[in-house]
Amino acid sequence: METPIAVLGGTGAEGSGLALRLARAGLPIIIGSRDEARARATANTIRTQVGPDTIVEGTANPEAAARSRLVILTVPFAAQLPTIQSVRDRLAEGTVLVDVTVPLAAAVGGRATRTLGVWEGSAAEQAAAAVPNSVSVVAAFHHLSAQHLSDLSHPVDSDVLVCGDQREAKERVRKLVDAVPGARYVDAGPLANARIVESITALLIGINIRYKVAGSALRITGIESPP
Amino acid sequence: METPIAVLGGTGAEGSGLALRLARAGLPIIIGSRDEARARATANTIRTQVGPDTIVEGTANPEAAARSRLVILTVPFAAQLPTIQSVRDRLAEGTVLVDVTVPLAAAVGGRATRTLGVWEGSAAEQAAAAVPNSVSVVAAFHHLSAQHLSDLSHPVDSDVLVCGDQREAKERVRKLVDAVPGARYVDAGPLANARIVESITALLIGINIRYKVAGSALRITGIESPP
Repeated sequence: METPIAVLGGTGAEGSGLALRLARAGLPIIIGSRDEARARATANTIRTQVGPDTIVEGTANPEAAARSRLVILTVPFAAQLPTIQSVRDRLAEGTVLVDVTVPLAAAVGGRATRTLGVWEGSAAEQAAAAVPNSVSVVAAFHHLSAQHLSDLSHPVDSDVLVCGDQREAKERVRKLVDAVPGARYVDAGPLANARIVESITALLIGINIRYKVAGSALRITGIESPP
Repeated sequence: METPIAVLGGTGAEGSGLALRLARAGLPIIIGSRDEARARATANTIRTQVGPDTIVEGTANPEAAARSRLVILTVPFAAQLPTIQSVRDRLAEGTVLVDVTVPLAAAVGGRATRTLGVWEGSAAEQAAAAVPNSVSVVAAFHHLSAQHLSDLSHPVDSDVLVCGDQREAKERVRKLVDAVPGARYVDAGPLANARIVESITALLIGINIRYKVAGSALRITGIESPP
């Protein structure tokens, strides 16, 4: 029996956009938030957009985490560790935590076109150090524009660079990527490569500013689709 | 009067491939090398590939640098500073140095899928600290596969992410990018962004290994061509 996909921080722009696309693909979703009422409101909005049969609900982050084995974390960098700490004891063994966090300097009043240095090397590795050993962290979805995701009429045109150290956990994330038309899974190597993948987000934010667009993203050329 | 384009380290795989493509576009080229005879041999090979009227010659790095106002540096990271030091006094005021260096951990016996930390932030910023103030450093061309460049029948399918702090210098590099069919200039922001752009090379090398290809590269989606 598949558990629903929890999207922690799912009331934010990136999280709600991703949840919208996954719900549209027919996947059951639980929106998590610090504020349960806002989580329910976002769930209702998604249901309105996708259709009355959509399986989507909203609840507090810890309950959302507890009811899922595939938990997506989409919060600003400053909220990453507090959110993980608030759900840590509720993560079941074997859960995959999909970390979308980017350590933008904006977290400390700096620019969104720059990243902070993270002691562990990347936000994803920081997450891996903060969850129980029985939880696998996979980094993914950093480059999908929140604005594009939230507009169902806008096709996604981006690869999803996926980093992680457990093959099986990455394969579970591949299914999420495949559920979003226009997104393509690319195996970007071990979790430590999130150092590079996260920083690309800052580069794309700068490109958005210079090119006056809402959602530059990227495609890897020269490869065929799998492995 | 346009000076020729010097390609320092132009006997290597990346440098000779890039020189080949620029020569094919009709740009006059000087191959530079520590070894003058090898530089001449590479120049002859390029002339054979492109045609007898090709303006390409080979000489020692310092002379190549002295005769050009647009100098491309394509050497392994361990050779970057020694090469700059060997040509530093020969760089004319107003020269643009196009740095293609990537600080791969392979430089110290580590993996080509990882980068080293560079004190200045990136290889390009290290170069900028090592050249006279009258020379502008622009970082570019990191993601074009040497193997693909060297095979004229293989179309280039990659954006070129260009970082630099002087607009005019970047515009001179745009002309080089535009001379390579299939390559597209993307303004990747200030020189400090080379930290990100260089590290993407390590990511692509890992993708080459996992996907068993010779030259993965990347395209930015969601933008129109200029600015």
